[in-house]
Amino acid sequence: MSSDVSSIAAASYGLMTSEAETDFVHHIALFAALLCACIVIGHLLEESRWINESITALAIGLGTGIVILLTSGGKSSHVLEFKQEFFFIYLLPPIIFNAGFQVKKKQFFQNFTTISSFGAIGTLISFAVISFGATRLFPKLGIGYLDTKDYLALGAIFSATDSVCTLQVLNQEETPLLYSLVFGEGVVNDATSVVLFNAITKFDLSDMNTVIAIKFAGNFLSLFVFSTFLGVLVGLLCSFTIRTLYFGRNSTDREVSLMILMAYLSYVLAEVFGLSGILTVFFCGIVMSHYAWHNVTINSQVTTKHAFATMSFISEIFIFMYVGMDALDVEKWKFVNDSPRKSFGASAVLLGLMMVGRACSVFPISLISNLTTKSNANKIEFKQQVTVWWSGLMRGAVSVALAYKKFTGSDEQTMQPANALLITSTIIVVLFSTVVFGLLTKPIIKFLLPRSSHTQPSSPNSIMMPLMGNRQVVEETGEDETLTTTTSNLHMLFNNPTNTIHYYWRKFDDAFMRPLFGGRGFVSYVTGTREVALV
Amino acid sequence: MSSDVSSIAAASYGLMTSEAETDFVHHIALFAALLCACIVIGHLLEESRWINESITALAIGLGTGIVILLTSGGKSSHVLEFKQEFFFIYLLPPIIFNAGFQVKKKQFFQNFTTISSFGAIGTLISFAVISFGATRLFPKLGIGYLDTKDYLALGAIFSATDSVCTLQVLNQEETPLLYSLVFGEGVVNDATSVVLFNAITKFDLSDMNTVIAIKFAGNFLSLFVFSTFLGVLVGLLCSFTIRTLYFGRNSTDREVSLMILMAYLSYVLAEVFGLSGILTVFFCGIVMSHYAWHNVTINSQVTTKHAFATMSFISEIFIFMYVGMDALDVEKWKFVNDSPRKSFGASAVLLGLMMVGRACSVFPISLISNLTTKSNANKIEFKQQVTVWWSGLMRGAVSVALAYKKFTGSDEQTMQPANALLITSTIIVVLFSTVVFGLLTKPIIKFLLPRSSHTQPSSPNSIMMPLMGNRQVVEETGEDETLTTTTSNLHMLFNNPTNTIHYYWRKFDDAFMRPLFGGRGFVSYVTGTREVALV
Repeated sequence: MSSDVSSIAAASYGLMTSEAETDFVHHIALFAALLCACIVIGHLLEESRWINESITALAIGLGTGIVILLTSGGKSSHVLEFKQEFFFIYLLPPIIFNAGFQVKKKQFFQNFTTISSFGAIGTLISFAVISFGATRLFPKLGIGYLDTKDYLALGAIFSATDSVCTLQVLNQEETPLLYSLVFGEGVVNDATSVVLFNAITKFDLSDMNTVIAIKFAGNFLSLFVFSTFLGVLVGLLCSFTIRTLYFGRNSTDREVSLMILMAYLSYVLAEVFGLSGILTVFFCGIVMSHYAWHNVTINSQVTTKHAFATMSFISEIFIFMYVGMDALDVEKWKFVNDSPRKSFGASAVLLGLMMVGRACSVFPISLISNLTTKSNANKIEFKQQVTVWWSGLMRGAVSVALAYKKFTGSDEQTMQPANALLITSTIIVVLFSTVVFGLLTKPIIKFLLPRSSHTQPSSPNSIMMPLMGNRQVVEETGEDETLTTTTSNLHMLFNNPTNTIHYYWRKFDDAFMRPLFGGRGFVSYVTGTREVALV
Repeated sequence: MSSDVSSIAAASYGLMTSEAETDFVHHIALFAALLCACIVIGHLLEESRWINESITALAIGLGTGIVILLTSGGKSSHVLEFKQEFFFIYLLPPIIFNAGFQVKKKQFFQNFTTISSFGAIGTLISFAVISFGATRLFPKLGIGYLDTKDYLALGAIFSATDSVCTLQVLNQEETPLLYSLVFGEGVVNDATSVVLFNAITKFDLSDMNTVIAIKFAGNFLSLFVFSTFLGVLVGLLCSFTIRTLYFGRNSTDREVSLMILMAYLSYVLAEVFGLSGILTVFFCGIVMSHYAWHNVTINSQVTTKHAFATMSFISEIFIFMYVGMDALDVEKWKFVNDSPRKSFGASAVLLGLMMVGRACSVFPISLISNLTTKSNANKIEFKQQVTVWWSGLMRGAVSVALAYKKFTGSDEQTMQPANALLITSTIIVVLFSTVVFGLLTKPIIKFLLPRSSHTQPSSPNSIMMPLMGNRQVVEETGEDETLTTTTSNLHMLFNNPTNTIHYYWRKFDDAFMRPLFGGRGFVSYVTGTREVALV
């Protein structure tokens, strides 16, 4: 017999944990129910096309926050409280991986120069404008207690755009260039701002000089290069493994498992090596959809395409709902209570800087891009420039995650007035830009590009006939190459010299990469016949 | 060293230093890499068909445990240490939901009486035999410090079978009755043992008398009924929502999200109400695949089918790998160090009791089933009875999860000799039964049912032609009803009176349920034409 005292102690300890456990299950249940409500209500409101899931999730989060605030007697507005790691370990990877996986690679790589200018250089310009502006304007609001690192972090946090809202309104068929610019810029922008943010938090930038600046730039560049390299490597490894092992077999679940696990592996490996997981998982997604996706069964293709999109979708509404709830967190507001004016002032300044910074990047880069482009079809008209500018004014999941990472973490940290101020300002900026700018997006784009808002963007499903389902999906989701690839590439080469890199890449890809790692035209038909032959 | 996953989710309870965070990321990376290795190696070994993923995962877990044990200087064998809640909140729900979702409903409900006899009554018999046997035999081994509750819990833990290994060998086309018996029994068994386990841990059974026994039985039955009811309710709600909202629209990602979230919601709701989440999510899966699955787009059908199977697959190899690592946990062995003989003795006793208990349930129930069945085709031959008996000898994920829940939790609890002994015994039983019985399964079934091992079981993918892919999947994964449903049912009614309930249910289903909640024949073709009409 073990001693009674110790077993009683163990029992009471067990009781305590099981109570906390029950609480936790309650909260998960409420969260799951709210996420379901977001999807259903978001769908019902979507009829109008003025409101999207982000706004719905924010509103439901706010509503729940108010209810909890009232029922808990003003103590808490949270259902669940997450640490910032939760966003980075679980929620961001699926969003970014899916962006890489679903990107239309042909348009992406054809407009690679413009997209990467907007995404990388544009983000750096925004970053510089916001950081510099905040350094100058914040002290005038009486917020003088931030150091250089805080200002630089602010710049990085608020250069991460969220272009989902604009993409919902743009029509990919009518304005392919514009769509691919906005989409491509969005993902490169996410990656750039996260890499920038990481470089800033790692570096000691307290006394800035030329040597440190050069070192910082070198660090930023090497992060960029190595992260990309790791993502490509894991993606290729996955493609090669699937091609070698599962070729033509009935192993959908294993293929899907392997793709999910290796994508996630690329992310955590990057974090282990101190690289940018976001950039790594983005390129891993691109490589997987370019090679691995063509090596798997058709069922796996449909499943991965939609399963990844679903995970990304759930993660996004999760983040927006959390922001809605967090907006009412009493703890944070308590610390800016003596000066709520400061918080709103800071938000207004940041919103203004975002608009200016965005203008400083979009219009000059468009000008340069137009000057270097000979073909008229690839020139960016002024109205399109305004659309691109507008599409980058919303702030979303990435900004929130970065702000949480920087300004919360430990309770002591949250309770510093400066951090509380910056968190509340971030929440105000995200709320305001998502709701107000988000609601204005449709009318503005309707005004700028009259044609594009008449027809609704059609997704692959809507034009799918039951019997042709899969094939159709394969045609639509894959890259848009046809069998006349070579001719069209030659055509492009003569018309548009900036596509030369793309042309040589394609030659290299067809000659060396695809035969080794699989890819469109190198696998799918063979798989088909082998499967039939196995029956 | 080891980090705690659930603390990330329940973040408000503890503080995590950035060092612990880095450690955590390292461990996740290693775990993800090991899971990938399991899939790849499991596939390579599968050629032989003697070894399956469970055994591979166990072996890799053991191997990693040894390496960590050596490199850490004998301190730890863990990569990650999980609380028992982790299994119940994250890993078990996908496994059980998938079982419900993929069950062949026609066979399941036609043989409902036999399956539920095997699954529910058989599990209760096993439970009684193991509990009673352990109460008598354990004191003889010198293990006298367990109370009634521990013995009953042991009975429940070791009545949860794992029939995956047998299912991999059986051929669904050649022995449909046997396959559906083994599969159906497996899932009902899981649910029964978990409900039983929960009833035991909740009840104060220290001084057992008739009143308490009746109360306990009443509690068990009401848990069963209400859990089933909740699962059916949430499943119907999901079907109705999707049918009403998304009918014929292009919203694959939302449909999939809603199905995943509502399935999970059913599970956590059941836990909130003190019901059995396992049973709830199982019936939610059945109802969803019967109604909701037919209301969604074809892409959603393919995606849900494989995404759920993938989640279940990953969860299972995760658990087996964890068991492999945990087998070498020095902490637990330290406490049985003075008497390793006891631990092995207890395992041997439990294995013996499992075999006897299984025999006491399978053969009598088969006899009764044969006596009440008039049609010869539905009689269970002796060799088939032996196969059913054998299929229930393996122990797996559910046993492990239950044992962790009962015998670990707090450190103090694990360090009690009795608990350490029972955990190590559980691990030995699971290891031994999975590896030894698992490896013997193929030769034994080959001997008992000579025909069934010649052809490999074919999954839907293998007989899929690219252009017909989806339709084929729809035909195969849905129930096997044809347009001659009514005639075949009448035929069945006259031949086999036990099917009367099934017949009336089908009439009711066709007349009231399907028109309201959707279902095969009531939705898919209409959806097709509407989608085409929308183009």
